[in-house]
Amino acid sequence: MSGGFARLPAPPYYAVIFSSRRNGADPGEYAAAADRMLELARVQPGFLGVESAREADGFGITVSYWESEAAIRAWREHAEHAQVRRHGRRHWYEHYELRVARVERASGFEGG
Amino acid sequence: MSGGFARLPAPPYYAVIFSSRRNGADPGEYAAAADRMLELARVQPGFLGVESAREADGFGITVSYWESEAAIRAWREHAEHAQVRRHGRRHWYEHYELRVARVERASGFEGG
Repeated sequence: MSGGFARLPAPPYYAVIFSSRRNGADPGEYAAAADRMLELARVQPGFLGVESAREADGFGITVSYWESEAAIRAWREHAEHAQVRRHGRRHWYEHYELRVARVERASGFEGG
Repeated sequence: MSGGFARLPAPPYYAVIFSSRRNGADPGEYAAAADRMLELARVQPGFLGVESAREADGFGITVSYWESEAAIRAWREHAEHAQVRRHGRRHWYEHYELRVARVERASGFEGG
């Protein structure tokens, strides 16, 4: 799921910044769960896009973008997502930090 | 500069989400410039911390955290930083997107 820019509307919208350190356990199971979560998120109302990068040492940042706080809340309460988060805390993450932010402006650059 | 969690105060504060694709040019020069920018940012008024991760394919996310929009603006106007940004657009980045967001809530998990 890594490597791509999200195509987003003009601000305002919301970002969930998820910084995490993986412990390296269950790489195949983790990748499959990440793919499944993306598949579910994409059909959530208000989902706008996601960007993700992880270093070889296990530290990664995933930013998901949402139309509203209500959309973030609904995704948080999604039963399968909640179950995978619990599993992740027990088995996959040494540490994570999650920050919810309102994006107020955006700009970009693409080379020729 | 990768691999670490920022130690941040309680929200609200601001995040600059910088997603980019490197072209792979000048890796040593790029790394030195990134270190220098971090050294300068750390002594800017209102700088709170930074987190960064880049995939082997060149896609990366850096999130810097700031006390206020004014602090972000002052860093943006820092002469050496502005010069390095210009150089980066010409030589180092295929594409980047920059989003400025107000962090409204945060939570975290650290395993035992």
